[in-house]
Amino acid sequence: MTDLAKTERSRVKRLHERGRYDFESVARILDSGFICHVGYVIDGRPYVTPTSYWREGEHVYWHGSSASRMLRSAQDETDACLTVSLIDGLVLARSAFHHSINYSSVMLFGKAVKVEDPDHKLQALENFVERMYPGRWAQLRPANAQELKATTVMAMAIEEGAAKMRTGNPVDDDEDYGWPVWAGVVPLRTVAGVPADDGRVPADAPGQPAVAGLRHLGIDPA
Amino acid sequence: MTDLAKTERSRVKRLHERGRYDFESVARILDSGFICHVGYVIDGRPYVTPTSYWREGEHVYWHGSSASRMLRSAQDETDACLTVSLIDGLVLARSAFHHSINYSSVMLFGKAVKVEDPDHKLQALENFVERMYPGRWAQLRPANAQELKATTVMAMAIEEGAAKMRTGNPVDDDEDYGWPVWAGVVPLRTVAGVPADDGRVPADAPGQPAVAGLRHLGIDPA
Repeated sequence: MTDLAKTERSRVKRLHERGRYDFESVARILDSGFICHVGYVIDGRPYVTPTSYWREGEHVYWHGSSASRMLRSAQDETDACLTVSLIDGLVLARSAFHHSINYSSVMLFGKAVKVEDPDHKLQALENFVERMYPGRWAQLRPANAQELKATTVMAMAIEEGAAKMRTGNPVDDDEDYGWPVWAGVVPLRTVAGVPADDGRVPADAPGQPAVAGLRHLGIDPA
Repeated sequence: MTDLAKTERSRVKRLHERGRYDFESVARILDSGFICHVGYVIDGRPYVTPTSYWREGEHVYWHGSSASRMLRSAQDETDACLTVSLIDGLVLARSAFHHSINYSSVMLFGKAVKVEDPDHKLQALENFVERMYPGRWAQLRPANAQELKATTVMAMAIEEGAAKMRTGNPVDDDEDYGWPVWAGVVPLRTVAGVPADDGRVPADAPGQPAVAGLRHLGIDPA
């Protein structure tokens, strides 16, 4: 796996010691979440859309309705910025200035390309379901041609971008450490509650997700 | 409070029954989170940056380093799209196609304007700290001129945009309801763990956040 290109737009300029460009760091963060924010430019103006994503090797994928404005605007390919942000904690310092957030993030730049080949598209959607809920694809009512047509799948190579992270305690000015205020970190996690079926599930139907089985999505049991 | 303009770019086209344009719905969602993703266009290409935000009346604010690429690129004002996404649950359906996420989101479009007036800027930063941690501003070492200079505060009017949300059970095709697979919702929450001081806090120093006191940020006790 190739490390990411450190370009003018991807180089972490602010607090550059927080930046990482190696593929493993980027992939580890991508593989710890499932919601990204994708930025597009339409008529010169920015749009930011939250959506699910998944990684396959050196590409990220996301999908949406073929009728969506964002995905329609992508003809063959379109400039995109895909950002994943995982929030780990609140950082309370002794001055307002040094308050912060602990996080891991990835910002990827590139050309978003529509996956046109039906076999590739179907395989990508299977990978998506399996990434979210391992073993589920085979349990589902099979996808049909109409659904496949109604779904647009976008792919972007993981080539240009950066990971960025902050961990640990507040970093206050030396002279502030005696200041009489609490300072430290409040850790944050995403947790799953008890799965609730919709009341129309046949007895003994398989596929109820185990709450402890969502850790790969960055979701802990409550 | 004026409802939001339903324009060509803000109108929710896909699943439009999920869209809301009234100010109260938008404000309620904005006031339930603290992380947004801001999209800018620089040299014709999109950038999406995660950051904290806060609302004051009919404006949203965010801040960053005055040295940041994003904020430097904003001369007097710049087109921005600010998106807030609160993830409430995983929705598992009987077909891959009807899987979904329960969420509340707001997408705002407008001109991001730098807050230049020092008094306004200081007041905005106080509001930010107080929004996150009520009562904390007065406990902190006061902000100084250098910090204020190093901080850029951006404001955008809440005028154009939309809220969008999905709640409840999967909506499957009628003929799929007998399919033998579990279907329903896994609720998700953000929770705070035990605050950990940094080991340099004077005894009896005030200001330790109560875990139960973060609900206004969309954070529950573990």
